[in-house]
Amino acid sequence: MREGQGWLAQHGFVDFAGSTVVHGVGGWIALATVMVIGPRAGRFDTKWLRQNMPGSNLPLAMLGSLLLLFGWFGFNGGSTLTFDARVPGIIVNTVVAGMAGIAVAMLLSSWRYGYIEPVALLNGMLAGLVAITASAHAVNIADSLLIGAGGGLAMWLADRLLVRCAIDDAVGAVPVHLAAGLWGTVAVALFGDPALLGTGLGRFDQLMVQLEGVLVCAVWSFGVTYLLLRLINRYYPMRVDPDEERIGLNVSEHGARTELIELLDAMAEH
Amino acid sequence: MREGQGWLAQHGFVDFAGSTVVHGVGGWIALATVMVIGPRAGRFDTKWLRQNMPGSNLPLAMLGSLLLLFGWFGFNGGSTLTFDARVPGIIVNTVVAGMAGIAVAMLLSSWRYGYIEPVALLNGMLAGLVAITASAHAVNIADSLLIGAGGGLAMWLADRLLVRCAIDDAVGAVPVHLAAGLWGTVAVALFGDPALLGTGLGRFDQLMVQLEGVLVCAVWSFGVTYLLLRLINRYYPMRVDPDEERIGLNVSEHGARTELIELLDAMAEH
Amino acid sequence: MREGQGWLAQHGFVDFAGSTVVHGVGGWIALATVMVIGPRAGRFDTKWLRQNMPGSNLPLAMLGSLLLLFGWFGFNGGSTLTFDARVPGIIVNTVVAGMAGIAVAMLLSSWRYGYIEPVALLNGMLAGLVAITASAHAVNIADSLLIGAGGGLAMWLADRLLVRCAIDDAVGAVPVHLAAGLWGTVAVALFGDPALLGTGLGRFDQLMVQLEGVLVCAVWSFGVTYLLLRLINRYYPMRVDPDEERIGLNVSEHGARTELIELLDAMAEH
Repeated sequence: MREGQGWLAQHGFVDFAGSTVVHGVGGWIALATVMVIGPRAGRFDTKWLRQNMPGSNLPLAMLGSLLLLFGWFGFNGGSTLTFDARVPGIIVNTVVAGMAGIAVAMLLSSWRYGYIEPVALLNGMLAGLVAITASAHAVNIADSLLIGAGGGLAMWLADRLLVRCAIDDAVGAVPVHLAAGLWGTVAVALFGDPALLGTGLGRFDQLMVQLEGVLVCAVWSFGVTYLLLRLINRYYPMRVDPDEERIGLNVSEHGARTELIELLDAMAEH
Repeated sequence: MREGQGWLAQHGFVDFAGSTVVHGVGGWIALATVMVIGPRAGRFDTKWLRQNMPGSNLPLAMLGSLLLLFGWFGFNGGSTLTFDARVPGIIVNTVVAGMAGIAVAMLLSSWRYGYIEPVALLNGMLAGLVAITASAHAVNIADSLLIGAGGGLAMWLADRLLVRCAIDDAVGAVPVHLAAGLWGTVAVALFGDPALLGTGLGRFDQLMVQLEGVLVCAVWSFGVTYLLLRLINRYYPMRVDPDEERIGLNVSEHGARTELIELLDAMAEH
Repeated sequence: MREGQGWLAQHGFVDFAGSTVVHGVGGWIALATVMVIGPRAGRFDTKWLRQNMPGSNLPLAMLGSLLLLFGWFGFNGGSTLTFDARVPGIIVNTVVAGMAGIAVAMLLSSWRYGYIEPVALLNGMLAGLVAITASAHAVNIADSLLIGAGGGLAMWLADRLLVRCAIDDAVGAVPVHLAAGLWGTVAVALFGDPALLGTGLGRFDQLMVQLEGVLVCAVWSFGVTYLLLRLINRYYPMRVDPDEERIGLNVSEHGARTELIELLDAMAEH
């Protein structure tokens, strides 16, 4: 029992920089949200035609993912809260897991589609990074490789499952943050060095505590969000109007092509 | 009197990392320049139709603004010239002011247009950052919020004023750097902790000195630039030729679509 | 003789952060590769018409180049392997050489074409950075200016030579990394402070050793790559199929526009 800490920490729950606390929570909330909002128009019109709607700017998505990789060095490396000798090893584990996630996504994409799907590489890398976030301080490089690879696989399977269930997650937030976050939290018990985890628990007990944390997070994050958004959605529907969606949110929400508005505006002033 | 320092410093002028020295000067020069060069063709053709000419790549503008935010951590944080205990607080103040600038721009844009104008958010953030630059070392978080919010408001009002005066500032340099820089310089006297400012002046005397610095900077930066550019402009007109402007400067200045040039070039060689 | 080091190091070869070891090797491999793969369809169809095929996203190329500049601070600055008092000077030399490369490319572009070619500026900067990489620890600022300027010139000449030889280097890897890398390696002997080089060689002997390193690198990197790729190319042609090239590799290799594939995929599953 650790006094002065939270209930899960007292049980021995380990989640170094937040595979569950950050990514699991975010992923559950994202899942509840896309379930309430519903798919984009035309995404799942028929059982047979599942219209892929990829992002419009792949180079920028690549750049953003690389900036995230760079940011993760500080995110995991800084989570020791001291700049000590563990930091370089944590950063190496982080990179290795990200690259393993890319490799798995590359293989799965080649095997499934016959070509390498670029967005799968980016999401594979992010999934690897999410997965190692819970245990980057307590595993070796070989473990990191397996944890990152498992993150890539979890991302891939979750992505397929969402499409099968006709849940439209436009940016892959649920596969990357939720699925890989779940795996990373469990992987603490499977791969973590007990001495570095410092919980004094055996591997099986550690696994049970990790699953307890996952379950608590799921019930709370998903449950509260889902109920709240369903309630809000009844009175203030969150999905945009079909006309606004067709014309594009840059126009209907953010005033792209504002010549007419500017004219009316100027006339109102004078 | 501080010996061995400049005239304004001896009077007690405080401008920590340069709301006036960097942003005010740049803003005055930008204002003089756009006044001499004149508006883009079609921007202010009639009193009624003021043609908005937004940037062509909003995602890249967003990325650039975020890189500026990141750079500001070093810009303000590094201006103590030592890496000491004040740095984290300075960075927090910087972030808070930037976010307050965003919030104000968001509210003003919603109230004025009925939608959130994305470029206003970016310029609001930058205006908040510019405003806190003079005093980030000498105010608390609540002050930073007000200073950043004031920066966003100053940016907004200056932007309206420029359009009203038919001055075409294509990238919003004057509202962001000049207007918010002026406000930030004055805000030193309004919000700064006298002990941290270390000038030994009362609030009113400090305000007079800040206004003195603003005025000197205005006369010198704007005056010299305006006179010099008017003179240059008489002999070497700075506004591009209307034909070159219509075809686009990427073609007329930088040789985009150079197939013909390449061909002539190759023929000349052989 | 330095025991326990490589053969070239024992001879007194100096290549601080790798003008030859990194950029020369990469450049020779790139040259061998583009020679084996051959030009893009339409690039050199006739002797007279040499179709320029510029990149499609200049702002992103600019951003990438600036990120490289930023990365070079760590690349050269970190190559002392200690964070000591030499680092700031090394970073200053690096920046100066990059800017000199820009200036030279700007002048050459204006003189040759009558306008400033934006990509030439980016490649000029990178060439200046590549050139200073071998000697950033052993030269002064004025030397850095000349070394960077020489890098820009070497890049420009190599670019012209490749076009003349109908070798299609789509991204300018050979002019930037090979030509400027060669120059930078030689420049160690021409400009390096003997005390800082620490080889005990006279300037002429140092030059001979630098040329020895360049030659060894050329024979090994270019020779092995060229022979290997020619052999591979005989059995597995590396140039994409003309149909795939015409439709675009984003479609033929990476499955852009995958609606049909998605449909067939869904039908196969059900």
